Amino acid sequence: MYAPPIQRLIAELSRLPGIGQRTAQRLAFHILRESDEDATALAAAIREVKEKIGTCEICFNLAEGPRCRICLDDRRDPKVICVVEEFGDIIPMERTHEFHGRYHVLGGALSPIDGVDPEDIRLAELYRRVTGDEVTEVVIATNPTTTGEATALHIADELHHVAPDVTVTRLASGLPVGGDLEYADEVTLGRAFAGRRRL
Amino acid sequence: MYAPPIQRLIAELSRLPGIGQRTAQRLAFHILRESDEDATALAAAIREVKEKIGTCEICFNLAEGPRCRICLDDRRDPKVICVVEEFGDIIPMERTHEFHGRYHVLGGALSPIDGVDPEDIRLAELYRRVTGDEVTEVVIATNPTTTGEATALHIADELHHVAPDVTVTRLASGLPVGGDLEYADEVTLGRAFAGRRRL
Repeated sequence: MYAPPIQRLIAELSRLPGIGQRTAQRLAFHILRESDEDATALAAAIREVKEKIGTCEICFNLAEGPRCRICLDDRRDPKVICVVEEFGDIIPMERTHEFHGRYHVLGGALSPIDGVDPEDIRLAELYRRVTGDEVTEVVIATNPTTTGEATALHIADELHHVAPDVTVTRLASGLPVGGDLEYADEVTLGRAFAGRRRL
Repeated sequence: MYAPPIQRLIAELSRLPGIGQRTAQRLAFHILRESDEDATALAAAIREVKEKIGTCEICFNLAEGPRCRICLDDRRDPKVICVVEEFGDIIPMERTHEFHGRYHVLGGALSPIDGVDPEDIRLAELYRRVTGDEVTEVVIATNPTTTGEATALHIADELHHVAPDVTVTRLASGLPVGGDLEYADEVTLGRAFAGRRRL
């Protein structure tokens, strides 16, 4: 139905996550309608991001050079490492302004069913950092999902062996602030109950 | 929060229709994670489509050269012109295999409230085609919306003046096939009633 260049653009767009065939078609039509400058700016931005942005050699966060902004920042405490699944998880953590240490991006969570084993995520690199540096605490901030929890338990276990003096902590699970008890699922509510604090 | 190249990519992506800030961020992260080849293929497809695809000089459909596939096809009847709002409307029409004439893409619908006046869409070009060529029928296939209806009435009015011998028709409105009478809105049902046919 479409000329080959249009077909190719629709195919490339529909490879993006959450973009189906129809959305890809709508986006392609938009690109066809917009000015050459706007379309070129989008193409250039894609190329630029791949050329200029790499991975931090220490924590595997996104970085413009060999090291990311956080690892380059002397004010960040190198004694505390927060472990996250993906680099996208760092931004919401930073928004809290609660954490002043450094990060470690695993690049995924353990999931034997999907074939993600310990050697497929950056665990060896984490253990090397924890044993080599002056680290005192590792905060495990993997997602509160089955795979995230399994990953957290696995890391805690390993760290107790390779670095017994390091404190290993996990982000609290419980009721979201502003949430309604009536609508909380029982797992979350159970966690909130188990993690209750004296007032 | 993000390095400038990432910010630029997010900004460019969020200009696309239906892509908000969060989706743009998710797409940017995907592009950051995928291989250089995949990202380059997307950027190249965007550039290629802008370089190779233009507008048909006759009907304003998308075209790889000066004329589109349909206008170049001798088997298409030049005596019948189907008027659509956007080039994206041609594909669903072609899928019906019911229409064997040619098209005319207006590039929008009349909407005084949005500042779209007759001179802002390709009406002069339509009238020139209809009066100049051997056209016998103009099928108005603008959308069954307020603006589409207004555009259809406006065109019919003008064509009765400039080309009184040309038959002007409009796509039927009524119940969608497979639809349920119980769930039809009253406007559609009213149209279906008014357009009822003898069996």
